[in-house]
Amino acid sequence: MQLTRFTDYSIRVLLHVGARDPGDLSSIAEIAQAYDISRNHLMKVVQDLGQGGFLETVRGRKGGLRLGRAADQITIGQIVRHTETSLNVVDCTACIVAPACILPRAFQEATRAFLTVLDGYTLADSLVRRDELRRIFGNFAPPALTEAAA
Amino acid sequence: MQLTRFTDYSIRVLLHVGARDPGDLSSIAEIAQAYDISRNHLMKVVQDLGQGGFLETVRGRKGGLRLGRAADQITIGQIVRHTETSLNVVDCTACIVAPACILPRAFQEATRAFLTVLDGYTLADSLVRRDELRRIFGNFAPPALTEAAA
Repeated sequence: MQLTRFTDYSIRVLLHVGARDPGDLSSIAEIAQAYDISRNHLMKVVQDLGQGGFLETVRGRKGGLRLGRAADQITIGQIVRHTETSLNVVDCTACIVAPACILPRAFQEATRAFLTVLDGYTLADSLVRRDELRRIFGNFAPPALTEAAA
Repeated sequence: MQLTRFTDYSIRVLLHVGARDPGDLSSIAEIAQAYDISRNHLMKVVQDLGQGGFLETVRGRKGGLRLGRAADQITIGQIVRHTETSLNVVDCTACIVAPACILPRAFQEATRAFLTVLDGYTLADSLVRRDELRRIFGNFAPPALTEAAA
């Protein structure tokens, strides 16, 4: 039982963007480099997170990515519900016993319990060790330096 | 997020075997026909369920498959723990932020909640509509007939 790579990458993107100071933006290139993930993959992820309201893209020379809403307003459950293509852990539609089987209900209940736990964790919770995360990301350049380097 | 096909087939096998009268046995050929699944796939599944103590193979002319223990002693959670190759829903080992990230813990907690729900359902629970299941399986031949046809 695994979540998709798309979900994995989505969460990683939000961690990177969320670890920055307010007003400081991430770029796809930076995120790709930090995690060693292809930019092409990340472009789709970023677009999808934008459509879901998790990310905003600021255009222009000093542009980049910022959270679409405060980190304490984004739960991990919301992200997983948005990014997973299917939350039917077993596809019972193709099974002949489905009409007489109670297991679809059991699996739905189990999946709800799974998501309820993840609804209890916000992106802010996952950023409690922000200083350590920032060190891992190679300490973001301060805004002034970013501007000079642009 | 999906369980493997191996888990899906394992549960289907146990439903077929469990729906029979005590003492009446299922064969791989019957199960394969009932669900339109290849016998090769099922042989691996049956072998694995045997190793886990969920199934017993009775050898000989009147041989076949029966449950390894009573249906009310087999929970769906036990089956899923046995058949899933991984219950790490996200593989955090390859992620650079893992040392500073609380999400591995969140996902483990969510997975435990998922399995706890499935521990609340036994194979016997999933056989409450046994008559209907048996009709779907094409009404098992009574033992006498099976013997005569052997």
